[in-house]
Amino acid sequence: MTPRGTGHRAAPEHTHPDDVPVLTALAALADPVRLTLVRELAGSPEWTRACGSFDVPVGKPALSHHFSVLRGAGLVEQRDEGARRVNRLRRAEFDARFPGLLELVLRADPLD
Amino acid sequence: MTPRGTGHRAAPEHTHPDDVPVLTALAALADPVRLTLVRELAGSPEWTRACGSFDVPVGKPALSHHFSVLRGAGLVEQRDEGARRVNRLRRAEFDARFPGLLELVLRADPLD
Repeated sequence: MTPRGTGHRAAPEHTHPDDVPVLTALAALADPVRLTLVRELAGSPEWTRACGSFDVPVGKPALSHHFSVLRGAGLVEQRDEGARRVNRLRRAEFDARFPGLLELVLRADPLD
Repeated sequence: MTPRGTGHRAAPEHTHPDDVPVLTALAALADPVRLTLVRELAGSPEWTRACGSFDVPVGKPALSHHFSVLRGAGLVEQRDEGARRVNRLRRAEFDARFPGLLELVLRADPLD
């Protein structure tokens, strides 16, 4: 837990991409909401996007679950800044573990 | 239906990789049984593997479903030869649509 300003939440747990099985990576990306989150993050500077800032049609508990899956797949890193939880895509680390996979899902067609 | 020797089954329906959304491709590969099927097919000459020849811990109806998902994702082509339904991995076509994705799942770690 960070010492101040994070309210009552526990700090988010992360998995490094090096520890992510390929099945976990594929399953994390094989979801339209999570793919939208990843794509929006890819288009934003690191640590600028709070969890509530994404244009996805799900409620807060579902969104929280999706971010948990993305953290567990080594795709997203989060930290608390005051009342906001901000995000970055772990692009370089994920690319090193699964070369080309992010590029593929980022460049692919409009969400199909 | 092919005219002779195929029993009562309808010929399998296929989807060309060019018509496969990226989410469908990812979801098809994000399953341990299907990933095993794809890996075994990648290691076998085309049209040599009958559906019953794979080392996966599922019954026939589930296996049939998995092959249906793989056909629908443009990953596998099937044809009936007498009582056998034989398979090939659509490697070139799938690679053209999703460059690097098959290579990634084929080279990745032992099934995790």
